[in-house]
Amino acid sequence: MGNTFGKLFKLTTYGESHGLAIGGILEGCPAGLELDMDAIQYEMDRRKPGQSAIVTQRKEADKVVFHSGIFEGRTTGTPIGFVIENTNQKSKDYGHIKDSYRPSHADYVYDQKYGFRDYRGGGRSSARETACRVVGGAIAKQFLKNIGINAFVSQVGDVALETPPSDIDFGKTESNPVRCPDSDTAEKMEELIRKVRKQGDTIGGVVSCVIQNVPPGLGEPVFDKLHAELGKAMLSINAVKGFEYGSGFQGVTMMGSEHNDRYNSDGTTRTNFSGGVQGGISNGMDIYFKVAFKPVATLIQAYETIDKEGNTVEVQGKGRHDPCVVPRAVPIVEAMAALVLADFSLLARTNKMG
Amino acid sequence: MGNTFGKLFKLTTYGESHGLAIGGILEGCPAGLELDMDAIQYEMDRRKPGQSAIVTQRKEADKVVFHSGIFEGRTTGTPIGFVIENTNQKSKDYGHIKDSYRPSHADYVYDQKYGFRDYRGGGRSSARETACRVVGGAIAKQFLKNIGINAFVSQVGDVALETPPSDIDFGKTESNPVRCPDSDTAEKMEELIRKVRKQGDTIGGVVSCVIQNVPPGLGEPVFDKLHAELGKAMLSINAVKGFEYGSGFQGVTMMGSEHNDRYNSDGTTRTNFSGGVQGGISNGMDIYFKVAFKPVATLIQAYETIDKEGNTVEVQGKGRHDPCVVPRAVPIVEAMAALVLADFSLLARTNKMG
Amino acid sequence: MGNTFGKLFKLTTYGESHGLAIGGILEGCPAGLELDMDAIQYEMDRRKPGQSAIVTQRKEADKVVFHSGIFEGRTTGTPIGFVIENTNQKSKDYGHIKDSYRPSHADYVYDQKYGFRDYRGGGRSSARETACRVVGGAIAKQFLKNIGINAFVSQVGDVALETPPSDIDFGKTESNPVRCPDSDTAEKMEELIRKVRKQGDTIGGVVSCVIQNVPPGLGEPVFDKLHAELGKAMLSINAVKGFEYGSGFQGVTMMGSEHNDRYNSDGTTRTNFSGGVQGGISNGMDIYFKVAFKPVATLIQAYETIDKEGNTVEVQGKGRHDPCVVPRAVPIVEAMAALVLADFSLLARTNKMG
Amino acid sequence: MGNTFGKLFKLTTYGESHGLAIGGILEGCPAGLELDMDAIQYEMDRRKPGQSAIVTQRKEADKVVFHSGIFEGRTTGTPIGFVIENTNQKSKDYGHIKDSYRPSHADYVYDQKYGFRDYRGGGRSSARETACRVVGGAIAKQFLKNIGINAFVSQVGDVALETPPSDIDFGKTESNPVRCPDSDTAEKMEELIRKVRKQGDTIGGVVSCVIQNVPPGLGEPVFDKLHAELGKAMLSINAVKGFEYGSGFQGVTMMGSEHNDRYNSDGTTRTNFSGGVQGGISNGMDIYFKVAFKPVATLIQAYETIDKEGNTVEVQGKGRHDPCVVPRAVPIVEAMAALVLADFSLLARTNKMG
Repeated sequence: MGNTFGKLFKLTTYGESHGLAIGGILEGCPAGLELDMDAIQYEMDRRKPGQSAIVTQRKEADKVVFHSGIFEGRTTGTPIGFVIENTNQKSKDYGHIKDSYRPSHADYVYDQKYGFRDYRGGGRSSARETACRVVGGAIAKQFLKNIGINAFVSQVGDVALETPPSDIDFGKTESNPVRCPDSDTAEKMEELIRKVRKQGDTIGGVVSCVIQNVPPGLGEPVFDKLHAELGKAMLSINAVKGFEYGSGFQGVTMMGSEHNDRYNSDGTTRTNFSGGVQGGISNGMDIYFKVAFKPVATLIQAYETIDKEGNTVEVQGKGRHDPCVVPRAVPIVEAMAALVLADFSLLARTNKMG
Repeated sequence: MGNTFGKLFKLTTYGESHGLAIGGILEGCPAGLELDMDAIQYEMDRRKPGQSAIVTQRKEADKVVFHSGIFEGRTTGTPIGFVIENTNQKSKDYGHIKDSYRPSHADYVYDQKYGFRDYRGGGRSSARETACRVVGGAIAKQFLKNIGINAFVSQVGDVALETPPSDIDFGKTESNPVRCPDSDTAEKMEELIRKVRKQGDTIGGVVSCVIQNVPPGLGEPVFDKLHAELGKAMLSINAVKGFEYGSGFQGVTMMGSEHNDRYNSDGTTRTNFSGGVQGGISNGMDIYFKVAFKPVATLIQAYETIDKEGNTVEVQGKGRHDPCVVPRAVPIVEAMAALVLADFSLLARTNKMG
Repeated sequence: MGNTFGKLFKLTTYGESHGLAIGGILEGCPAGLELDMDAIQYEMDRRKPGQSAIVTQRKEADKVVFHSGIFEGRTTGTPIGFVIENTNQKSKDYGHIKDSYRPSHADYVYDQKYGFRDYRGGGRSSARETACRVVGGAIAKQFLKNIGINAFVSQVGDVALETPPSDIDFGKTESNPVRCPDSDTAEKMEELIRKVRKQGDTIGGVVSCVIQNVPPGLGEPVFDKLHAELGKAMLSINAVKGFEYGSGFQGVTMMGSEHNDRYNSDGTTRTNFSGGVQGGISNGMDIYFKVAFKPVATLIQAYETIDKEGNTVEVQGKGRHDPCVVPRAVPIVEAMAALVLADFSLLARTNKMG
Repeated sequence: MGNTFGKLFKLTTYGESHGLAIGGILEGCPAGLELDMDAIQYEMDRRKPGQSAIVTQRKEADKVVFHSGIFEGRTTGTPIGFVIENTNQKSKDYGHIKDSYRPSHADYVYDQKYGFRDYRGGGRSSARETACRVVGGAIAKQFLKNIGINAFVSQVGDVALETPPSDIDFGKTESNPVRCPDSDTAEKMEELIRKVRKQGDTIGGVVSCVIQNVPPGLGEPVFDKLHAELGKAMLSINAVKGFEYGSGFQGVTMMGSEHNDRYNSDGTTRTNFSGGVQGGISNGMDIYFKVAFKPVATLIQAYETIDKEGNTVEVQGKGRHDPCVVPRAVPIVEAMAALVLADFSLLARTNKMG
């Protein structure tokens, strides 16, 4: 259970880090959507390892092969099956974790839950599965057309971007390997990541996201509120510890008279502490939210831990890992946001009589 | 859509603030659970309006009537239907919002989504629906038996509880109307709420929650991670703007070497930055999380807004509302956490071969 | 589990035969549908006990009370909660089955599945729950507007209606208590039912159904084919043993060259062995199907059976029961068909790009 | 939508007849099941084309490749992704149907529903997709262990097997290409199929199924009754027109006193008109049901039909097709039955308190 996301625009994924392949099925994408295959691969390339000096040096081609649901360049309305081969498994790198539990990894809990586990590369718990999310999200983006989903790195460790969302030039996000749309801040972030990597250590960060041109009416209260599904979507990404939208945790200290967003005569609002969502439904204003990522748990350092019998063992961390996960998380955040919006867009088609 | 929570332990609710009644159906509660009806009503009373001087003075008996699924004091395995009458509707209080949109309320978006709305008391978007969540959650709590779910108010405006989760005496939460387990902090919070109310204004706050005795193995990655469902559950509560668990947004600035939770030989960990969840699955340590509530939007002040035609209108806020929502949110947070855990407990029964 | 029908136009029901009330929640009915309340009650009256001399003489008012989801006569898009009181429980009638298992009833299997059961009146397994289906179906019918759903009794025991579906005057179905649209056949059926009742026995029958004006395109292969969902819907009604559509079991003996429905130039077909469904999707022709009902198991005769300990006991059948279930099954078959079509109608809104 | 079967033991499939590959994801199979890969391939071989002289001569290796969810020969509890290549597409065979609609095929309705279609080999509507069902079903069979699922051909055209289910030697089903467990009847059936094939025509048939050793308690009323899900499962198979279980359509003419299954002191029943299911829940007796298949629509004859513009066109049927579908349907019926039972077995784990 738990491998499907969405109700109508529905992605189901499979795959372990070191199996033959990972893949998925995207159901519910309406028929007749012309697909730009290069745009899909572009998103894959933004996520893939080895793309720059500050991410893991593991190499994966991450080429998506589509098996079904597309005919003469357009979606047919039938399920889109796709596969991404695992070409660069170095299973021998993981012999050291076969019988021990890495701290703050999922090794221990998978054993507790299922009785045993595919330990190679973290198996199903590896962030490798997010490649399938990016495939689904890239198609969702094309389905959503005019809706602009703009994620970017707004914080790495203590280095934070101060520019307010409305002043950011999203066109600059891809101009540096950190994916921070401000070049000065990006440089400081990159420096910090390099420093941390040299120590064999890792550091956390924040991905922010601004979604533009969302039509009003998306979201299905009382439980499936737009921001609640966005929150779930983001929290389901590896290493995420927190989610806030609009005023977020800052809103706690505000007075209602200050926090309320007054209307203009066209239904837009003068402020946007609501973050584009009221009562769980989009109001047509920009949606913005932040996602907190912890420092990844895999270190290139020696550490003490326990084995299956509870004995203390000393393990030498190795493998090829990310010192900071947020640059590669940007396309994943966008993908998940796109999946949420595509699903609610389809559901919204059923809200009113013809 | 969006009125069902859970996959196996499944709550579906209905009801508008000013209709005849609200109610719900709880499906999937295993047969043979002896129900303590007083314990259910106790939870209802913790949520209900009019319980203290610092909450809304609206009066609702909030008596639950069960129609089915219980026989001779025990659950039968069939769906539990329940109804709570709306006894204290003052629909005339809402004439002023029939044709205008209150700022930061759901009035506007419901009209956009559905074409028209039951405007009385906010209709379906009213927090009144959370009473049904508390019914479902109260039964879930009894199902969960030894698992202890302890929510409490940890912040109101700028007044924050500084005690770390592990040092809190949860037995004191109910000792004051704010539901803050530290009496000095509670007093300051109460004072602030009284001051805000006198101004006809409102203020935000934070509800924290610590869950004890959770067995390892709950949660269904990759999408339905334990913390992702908890996050969705909390974000679906009215006025919530953010959710974080374990190290949360603080974790962003930490190094991996510092953040990793080292194991003891029994599988417990020395620190708990993970917040009891690793890879989306409970690890047996305490789960803790925080939920940010914005100041409620309803003010007892005059304000400018627009009507359906986009004309500016001046409205005099009235009705009976909460100056700060967090004291009454405590049982709702607990209810939603209980529903999440009950659902994952049932799912966990299917993880392994017999 | 198993108390919800439909994916988007979604009915969830609760209730035991002898509890306080039965009820349900209808989710997903689009906003803005004007409801004819008399038409809903009319369907309830067609199903209710005591309506004629050939059905059970139990009396139930079967008045539906709506709690939510309707405002100023129209659906609001929010869930429609409804309740039907159980006013005529004679629980003392069922003391004799408290500890013994009636043959071919669900008494034994409920004990096996859940460990104990609400034995009064059959509890959840009583056909009383179908009243909630009729509520949902009556609203679905109004949503479907021009689609005509015409069920009727086509067989009681050996007495069968010979008229082909296309020659039937559906306007006559309600002209006799059997609900057979041919008065001569109806008379013979009625006679047979009276005879059977006098013997304290019961007899089976067939309900046929013809659905007119179905737009092409409804049904969601490969698993949720239109006829597969219709089949499930019908088989879920108490006492149903078989379902066939189009040529049905007769089609087995036909040759493909004979069975294939040739097209007219407008896409209609000259014959309709397909029964209005091809590849699981409606083709615009009339849908027709048959539903086989076994003789109901409750007899007003003495019989031997076993108790919980496996001892043989002699039981005297009593209570008020139907000698033949099909006349009252007609509105239930229509209700379930309406629910299936309403659900697929909403799903069909999502099949193509805008 | 409609490409997923099951709630917990859940199969999602994709794939068109002439795409690169077909495949699926099986979710929810508990961890720790040792898989017999040969047994899976054996089921595939029973379904595959070209296996005997009386089925289509199309050649497909139908080798399943598993991508995930299996480690060291056992299921890991994570989703099982699998792929079956389409190796023998002769798309040129289908040029003749690109612009015309074959009678009683899904060509027309797919165009109506989705606006266009992958016409090659019937696309998604081809029975090729049932190969994926057989993969899922083969794993379900291994999960079910002691439960014996025995489908067989009981009728081809007018040639029917007269042996009652309880007297059949299921060991003989595979002894002839028709899959009828009585060799004399099998011979007559084979003769009939050969004759029909020579005429370029097709003929219908019936597959019967007997399921042994089912534990009592499976099935989730009121909507998801065991026989209702079995019915839906069978009706979702290509070319199926009817389903009956237990007494089926014959039960219609019986009296209740005759039809009721009297109990033995151990809870078994003397007769089994119920077909192993009472009130939608298995009672531990053999489950038996029949599935009616129409003659397949593809003929190797010339026929008249219409094109997209409604013009009459003459088409010459070609390609490689089955003169009678039931021999190859036997493993598909078993697969679907296994999926239903596996799903209800998992659900049954949640029925009672610990």
